[in-house]
Amino acid sequence: MHSIQVHLGERSYPIHIGTGLIDSGAAIHSHLVQPRAVVVTNSTVAPLYFERLAGPLRGLGVDLLKIELPDGEAHKTWDTLNRIFDELLAHRCERRTTLIALGGGVIGDLTGFAAATYQRGVPFIQVPTTLLAQVDSSVGGKTGINHPRGKNMIGAFYQPRLVLADIGTLSTLPSRELRAGLAEVIKYGLIWDAAFFDWLEANLPALLAGDPGSLAHAVRRSCEIKAEVVALDERESGVRALLNLGHTFGHAIEAGLGFGQWLHGEAVAAGMVMAARLSAALGDMSAADLARVERIIDRAGLPVEGPQFGPARYKDLMGLDKKVEGGRLRLVLCKGIGSAYVTAEFPHERLDAVLSAAAG
Amino acid sequence: MHSIQVHLGERSYPIHIGTGLIDSGAAIHSHLVQPRAVVVTNSTVAPLYFERLAGPLRGLGVDLLKIELPDGEAHKTWDTLNRIFDELLAHRCERRTTLIALGGGVIGDLTGFAAATYQRGVPFIQVPTTLLAQVDSSVGGKTGINHPRGKNMIGAFYQPRLVLADIGTLSTLPSRELRAGLAEVIKYGLIWDAAFFDWLEANLPALLAGDPGSLAHAVRRSCEIKAEVVALDERESGVRALLNLGHTFGHAIEAGLGFGQWLHGEAVAAGMVMAARLSAALGDMSAADLARVERIIDRAGLPVEGPQFGPARYKDLMGLDKKVEGGRLRLVLCKGIGSAYVTAEFPHERLDAVLSAAAG
Repeated sequence: MHSIQVHLGERSYPIHIGTGLIDSGAAIHSHLVQPRAVVVTNSTVAPLYFERLAGPLRGLGVDLLKIELPDGEAHKTWDTLNRIFDELLAHRCERRTTLIALGGGVIGDLTGFAAATYQRGVPFIQVPTTLLAQVDSSVGGKTGINHPRGKNMIGAFYQPRLVLADIGTLSTLPSRELRAGLAEVIKYGLIWDAAFFDWLEANLPALLAGDPGSLAHAVRRSCEIKAEVVALDERESGVRALLNLGHTFGHAIEAGLGFGQWLHGEAVAAGMVMAARLSAALGDMSAADLARVERIIDRAGLPVEGPQFGPARYKDLMGLDKKVEGGRLRLVLCKGIGSAYVTAEFPHERLDAVLSAAAG
Repeated sequence: MHSIQVHLGERSYPIHIGTGLIDSGAAIHSHLVQPRAVVVTNSTVAPLYFERLAGPLRGLGVDLLKIELPDGEAHKTWDTLNRIFDELLAHRCERRTTLIALGGGVIGDLTGFAAATYQRGVPFIQVPTTLLAQVDSSVGGKTGINHPRGKNMIGAFYQPRLVLADIGTLSTLPSRELRAGLAEVIKYGLIWDAAFFDWLEANLPALLAGDPGSLAHAVRRSCEIKAEVVALDERESGVRALLNLGHTFGHAIEAGLGFGQWLHGEAVAAGMVMAARLSAALGDMSAADLARVERIIDRAGLPVEGPQFGPARYKDLMGLDKKVEGGRLRLVLCKGIGSAYVTAEFPHERLDAVLSAAAG
């Protein structure tokens, strides 16, 4: 087991990464403040992992309630959140009852937001079972739900007490979801660590084949980078925005197609290519580096091209993004491979050209 | 104008108390981070005060949106909150757009929770127009909505950037609401400041008559005490719980009758008498002091007796309170007048006797 500390003062917490972690119970048990917890999971994950998590905890004397939700991004809504509240209230859960998110990004975001707002805040623990959740959404405290007008529009910054990333759970992950998770892994190399990007190019076949050692390294390095960035800027007033490379484009794709049509990582992959193309058009990325970005996205089985919305529709959808400030669209762009920056200063005809290419 | 600072590190903020403050615009303008704001108010307050607040701000170049909600505790719900989100999204409000709560406690709690969760948090300002909101709910960052199973069950701790308490707005406050606000004022004397309790006994007629000087003093001393307690314990892990004197009983009354039947302050008033009676039964309050508590509540035109639910129903309703810990009910009780404490250690037959008296 490898541990990474997210340094946030009194809100600091560890990320444990390893194989078979969900079978022990001990790590979670040591973070509970009363011998009672609620596991929020979904109908896909529950049959695979709920008992493996719950059995050892019950053996340690923990009273566990299970809340099983339907699977999918389409359920990241008010209604599903209210189902969680109804269950918590029906079972008289208290301010010291810990919520445990067992599942992917949707379960983590929903459970985290429920924990942030039930009785104005209860403890919570992330047990991510998808690659995307392990490398991204379970770390850093972003929680929330979607609104018909925009992704993650309602939410809170609320940190977990512990993140338990069991690499073993990735063995049951569908290939499409593994690839979607790799989009976020590639992102870390692109914005922060050129050597990691090199490593990813070399080890992509092993990662796609589900090699546990390679996956463990990818999760570990991704979490290290995310922990470093979040510690610098918990509430995204500065450097944390770099983690959104490809996301403004990606959110437009998700909203334009309807949430759940493309996986989040797929939309981010196509969005990263758009960001890289705009960076290249502005002279901030060489043609060779742009080609490397397109190639690794393609080799990972992820979409290089976005849907054909046309520039006007793309920009309308992007205008609702949380990165808009003073009515001006701000984008994360690349400085070569391994570095990124945020800017609202770009010629809109360059952006239109990139978005038109997406339409062609 | 008098100013009190709430000391919470980087989340510190001032409370301005005075007459005619909403007509100036300057205080609010200096706290905006972009020249755009959204005023959330209700159909009772809007005709009285919206233009007085909005005119000067527009004169200073601020783009203002008004969101007008129906009046009353019955609207402190998911549905109303969603109306706010819908408007904010329809008008493409951003992370730097400030929400201004203009109204009483319901408007303040709803607007604060919307600010806490819209795009994971936007700035907000409290402009309380009721006595209850000026002395209690606008200060300290408790925000939230009701759930059919319990009051304020969903919410967040989220501090405003500024509280602007214009005593002049109390001149239009219905007498019943003024009295309900006095319940919270009396509470501060009872839990924290015996001399203030003495002052309240002496000045109650002036307060009930709406004398601005007396009201200004009552608001100022109440806010000083609340600011002191909140600075000691922002998230209610300790001393802040004392502010809930009478509230566990009071919430049971509100939930049992249906939210909005009794005003919050009325329920708290009857609840404080119950707490004082239990304190007296346990030997922590003299018969003379208990009589003073009952007398000032009665003189303020507030209910001394709760509804006739009977002990079993009361305890069932109280069991859902946020102060329940490990399945045990914790209550705030008095040590004479001017001091209070939290305990789960009391004979339940004593509590039953107090609750039965309420039933008689």
